[in-house]
Amino acid sequence: MKTNSAKTDDRTRAIAERVFASETKDDDVRDEISLFDVPDDCPILNQELAQHVTEDDDEEKRSVNKIMPFQTVLQVTMDDFELACKGLYRALTIREKYMRLAFQRFPDTPSQFLRKIEGEQWKPEDQVLPVFTSPPKSGEDPFCTKDFPPNLGYVARMKDGVIYVYKDAASADKHQPLNHPGPDLVTFIDDMNFLIALIAQGPTKTYTHRRLKFLMSKFNVHEMLNEMEEMKELKKNPHRDFYNCRKVDTHIHAAACMNQKHLLRFIKKSYRVDADRVVHVLKGKEMTMKELFASLNLHPYDLTVDSLDVHAGRQTFQRFDKFNAKYNPVGASELRDLYMKTENHISGEYFATIIKEVASDLEDARYQYAEPRLSIYGCNPNEWTKLASWFNKHRVFSPHLKWMIQVPRIYDIFRGRNFVPHFGKMLENIFLPIFQATIDPNSNPELSVFLKHVTAFDSVDDESKHSGHMFSTKSPKPEEWDIVKSPSYSYWIYYMYANIARLNQLRKERGMNTFQFRPHCGEAGAVTHLLACFMTADNISHGLNLKKSPVLQYLYYLAQVPIAMSPLSNNSLFLEYNKNPLLEFHKKGLMVSLSTDDPMQFHYTKEPLMEEYAIAAQVFKLSTCDMCEIARNSVLQSGLSAEEKIHFLGTNYLKDGPEGNDIRKTNLAQIRMAYRYETLCYELNLIREGVMAD
Amino acid sequence: MKTNSAKTDDRTRAIAERVFASETKDDDVRDEISLFDVPDDCPILNQELAQHVTEDDDEEKRSVNKIMPFQTVLQVTMDDFELACKGLYRALTIREKYMRLAFQRFPDTPSQFLRKIEGEQWKPEDQVLPVFTSPPKSGEDPFCTKDFPPNLGYVARMKDGVIYVYKDAASADKHQPLNHPGPDLVTFIDDMNFLIALIAQGPTKTYTHRRLKFLMSKFNVHEMLNEMEEMKELKKNPHRDFYNCRKVDTHIHAAACMNQKHLLRFIKKSYRVDADRVVHVLKGKEMTMKELFASLNLHPYDLTVDSLDVHAGRQTFQRFDKFNAKYNPVGASELRDLYMKTENHISGEYFATIIKEVASDLEDARYQYAEPRLSIYGCNPNEWTKLASWFNKHRVFSPHLKWMIQVPRIYDIFRGRNFVPHFGKMLENIFLPIFQATIDPNSNPELSVFLKHVTAFDSVDDESKHSGHMFSTKSPKPEEWDIVKSPSYSYWIYYMYANIARLNQLRKERGMNTFQFRPHCGEAGAVTHLLACFMTADNISHGLNLKKSPVLQYLYYLAQVPIAMSPLSNNSLFLEYNKNPLLEFHKKGLMVSLSTDDPMQFHYTKEPLMEEYAIAAQVFKLSTCDMCEIARNSVLQSGLSAEEKIHFLGTNYLKDGPEGNDIRKTNLAQIRMAYRYETLCYELNLIREGVMAD
Repeated sequence: MKTNSAKTDDRTRAIAERVFASETKDDDVRDEISLFDVPDDCPILNQELAQHVTEDDDEEKRSVNKIMPFQTVLQVTMDDFELACKGLYRALTIREKYMRLAFQRFPDTPSQFLRKIEGEQWKPEDQVLPVFTSPPKSGEDPFCTKDFPPNLGYVARMKDGVIYVYKDAASADKHQPLNHPGPDLVTFIDDMNFLIALIAQGPTKTYTHRRLKFLMSKFNVHEMLNEMEEMKELKKNPHRDFYNCRKVDTHIHAAACMNQKHLLRFIKKSYRVDADRVVHVLKGKEMTMKELFASLNLHPYDLTVDSLDVHAGRQTFQRFDKFNAKYNPVGASELRDLYMKTENHISGEYFATIIKEVASDLEDARYQYAEPRLSIYGCNPNEWTKLASWFNKHRVFSPHLKWMIQVPRIYDIFRGRNFVPHFGKMLENIFLPIFQATIDPNSNPELSVFLKHVTAFDSVDDESKHSGHMFSTKSPKPEEWDIVKSPSYSYWIYYMYANIARLNQLRKERGMNTFQFRPHCGEAGAVTHLLACFMTADNISHGLNLKKSPVLQYLYYLAQVPIAMSPLSNNSLFLEYNKNPLLEFHKKGLMVSLSTDDPMQFHYTKEPLMEEYAIAAQVFKLSTCDMCEIARNSVLQSGLSAEEKIHFLGTNYLKDGPEGNDIRKTNLAQIRMAYRYETLCYELNLIREGVMAD
Repeated sequence: MKTNSAKTDDRTRAIAERVFASETKDDDVRDEISLFDVPDDCPILNQELAQHVTEDDDEEKRSVNKIMPFQTVLQVTMDDFELACKGLYRALTIREKYMRLAFQRFPDTPSQFLRKIEGEQWKPEDQVLPVFTSPPKSGEDPFCTKDFPPNLGYVARMKDGVIYVYKDAASADKHQPLNHPGPDLVTFIDDMNFLIALIAQGPTKTYTHRRLKFLMSKFNVHEMLNEMEEMKELKKNPHRDFYNCRKVDTHIHAAACMNQKHLLRFIKKSYRVDADRVVHVLKGKEMTMKELFASLNLHPYDLTVDSLDVHAGRQTFQRFDKFNAKYNPVGASELRDLYMKTENHISGEYFATIIKEVASDLEDARYQYAEPRLSIYGCNPNEWTKLASWFNKHRVFSPHLKWMIQVPRIYDIFRGRNFVPHFGKMLENIFLPIFQATIDPNSNPELSVFLKHVTAFDSVDDESKHSGHMFSTKSPKPEEWDIVKSPSYSYWIYYMYANIARLNQLRKERGMNTFQFRPHCGEAGAVTHLLACFMTADNISHGLNLKKSPVLQYLYYLAQVPIAMSPLSNNSLFLEYNKNPLLEFHKKGLMVSLSTDDPMQFHYTKEPLMEEYAIAAQVFKLSTCDMCEIARNSVLQSGLSAEEKIHFLGTNYLKDGPEGNDIRKTNLAQIRMAYRYETLCYELNLIREGVMAD
């Protein structure tokens, strides 16, 4: 494992800093060829490579195309090939390490190749998996507060932005934490700088770019040869088609999970029933719903989707600020408070009812699931208790919903208003209550119930905002970060991850469910976001900017990092529909799923997820097999429990390749599964050959 | 009216023939610049025009840009301008003439300009309108066979492919028909040849091309200036939004009006209930449904949308033949017969039930209507009686459905099997029964009931098939057309139109509803199809090929010929979604509506029409105002009765411009209406100036 242990030297760090600087500069220039791009047909590059191929005929510097079925695909010199493979190998080991540390997934196939390279035996026990709460058995109450494990009596305390668990206050004072391994900041920064240098490294860029092009062409050939055979397999598959195979909406915000028409109808209905109910307090004065609407010069009867004005239109394209304003019905934050908040004068009753209506639609549709995201801001340590109380009070549970927590990266706003003294406090507000509820579940039974149903954390904000700060070992610690500016994306991501990793250690130890890290990433902004998440995230939302970095795109492919894509959302915000890389990623074999993001803002029909699939199918001409593969990806990516995944995908769903696929449940052709598996093994094997060459 | 009366001379006819010949030759060469195309920036053209503009400063040959607000838009010489305007003027008078003759619509605004040019007074009474049956009053039975007018005792008989009505058999023998004016073949061919020459005429091509470019830019400017104002108008409009403004699916085939999932569910349900029912007869032997499915090696329980295989996939693109096979569930014509035919062992019961389920979904959705098309083949004169019997027996009526008759252009097949002796017989089979039921409604009460609910005729087939025949005065008469080859599109269209026109005269006289002619046109094939329909059709389906002829596109704009577009259908057959001209046509001001064509083959969701609108809105980034304008167009284009149109669009729906729009019902901004109206008047006025210049 010589390559793995190599510490990033000063030279690499310097490169990383240069890359970061140029990245910052480039940020406004869209559509230009970025530092990470390799032009499709760079004449100089081709000449250079052609020279290598024709000149060197000796064994020493032989061109690798000998091991390739297609001579033209891998025209790089042996040196460059080895360099690229070693870099990619180390990158994969980095991800593997951080995934294990946090009980997140790293697929068996790349693990097996890594072990082979290291001359070690891969053991099935090495597989690390997140733990999700199974759905309640019949008669079981999902809100039951009994049977929580006893208080461990530990002390949880933050140090340098990370919560540690100590046996007692005395060990806490001496900082002698219990053994819950977490990432080490210095190593993490080293690893990160290595990756930053790697994604800008010429030979690796060339190599990965060519491999991706090859993957694309290979899939096109596969399609031409096997499309009809795949369809034949599906036609023979009884009783299962795209409509009745399970699909999960892997990225949806709770506050926008209803469509505009649903919200409108709900507002009208609530007014018919509750006009005289006190629903709001303005400057200490109670207001009925009638009075509230009167103060806004509105009558719900007249309200339309136009006046509601929550749909993203042409005005929101490239304007995330305008988009955010769309969360306010009729532009009135009072209505957002009343209908789309968990905390208000009516204890979030309407919001809970709307979500339960959405859940009931999913239950009726039978094969659709969703993972709504609720916000924790980190402004106040009570947020968790309040959110949990809302969840329990209104019994917001459905077997078709899996919950996620989204943390908006709006430290600058809270700091600006002096709500928090420093960034560390925000992290503490976000994580300390969960550590405490994990140590002593009975101290906050409602929170403990809620946490059972939470499957993951998200990190959200406009990624195109650039902080200008570069995360390094010299960065201020979170408790020292007291300026009004927000820390960088990577800084945020690291501290979220570091806390989740340690929290999962503790929860796993206690037999509790763990949390995945599933941030928004690569929707806009610097490609380094995708790098930070390659290290830390089980899976991401969006990933559009993988277009800009062949190295990262190839790494996401090799590690099969799931990506929840929302082309309709992108179409309204960042990227026109037919330019969306969904099809390209899917063809190359990246593990993509389809998700709605915000039905309220983007969708027109009663079934937003089906609308998302239908439009992708129409515009990209997806085959049934493609759609079923994407649907299967969505279940794998989701926080559905192992029990549910077995039910929806088959007993061996964790196995890679055709073995892991039960066509009777997934309607996904085995030919496709075999193609994907063989292709991935082929790519991984190339890396093995490159690393083992000398 | 000197230009109007000019007979097409031999020179023009020669040009027409040359155009036709080159059109035939060009037919296979897609995407090439056709004879009718003007390149966007033709340097020679521009030079030439620039010369004219700079050289000629005298009053005689002045450049017309003096009368234009934008100098660069109309850089053609005065001679060319006059030539183009005279041609366009005559073209409009031709359409006006044939619309009146058949009780089809020609809008007031162009009529008023034509009268102004002719120095005549336009009178509101000049307006000619089709007659549609009003929906039954409450308690009224739509199937009531009482109260039909008495037998007129007339005799209907075909001569030269057209049915004439005579006082009695004696006058029929002497061919002394009653005075029901119809088109005259020689004049029609003259008019047609004039138009063929016009669409190939250089100056007219240049002029119309530039006008269309101008219309596009003008709309873009309008959008930039007024988009927010339009939205403001809509926001202020109480209780009406896109969801609750009426929309009509203006082009949908009854045999594919359910989506694939609906058909699948219906088949399964029918098997659960009717497994032991005799549903089929094979070689004289009765078969139960169980036996039928067993003979196909199928069990409905195992059936999926994949094995059903009715959805158009990538395989159907550019393959109309493969597409047609998709009408057979599981590739079995027996199932098509059982579920999608009006005539079978169970008297079309299942088909009727499916359609009634579709209607019931539309009734639930409240604001959606559809105009399903049923086939009359012309193979046998009994077809009408059988179809009417099916309609009455199963009481296939819904206020949300308006019926149309589609006539497939498959003479060659019927002639090849010797089902008909000549083309005239087909026309007779199609039209004679309706003439007879119109003369003596009580002779066929079921047909008379059915005809009350029929609003239009369609002509359908793959337009890319080219007959090679050019329709001229020398063409064989229908009764002489006994070869196995089909006559040309124009020939078909003329004889359909000629019969409908005379039929409408008779029906109007009797106070009965009339029929519109609404053929498939311009989906593929020669642009001359669009020319034939410009002369004869109230409105058309598809119209994609208007892209290829600026002259026809501009004429369709000036005459506001409605076009039912189905971009999802095109996407599976002829044209990729984002290349669809829908957006372009809409921006230029052509009167487009959205329709589904075949939900069974193209759509994924439960609401195909909403899916069609949603995808167009997403991909083309349509505003609410755009969508409401298209929805309003669909109601105007449809066969909904005057009563319903008043209810859905407002009392003045027949008036052009803002006056005709009731925003409270249509949610269409008056700013948009004013823009459209002023723009159309501006274009028509230019033509007036051109014609009156000398």
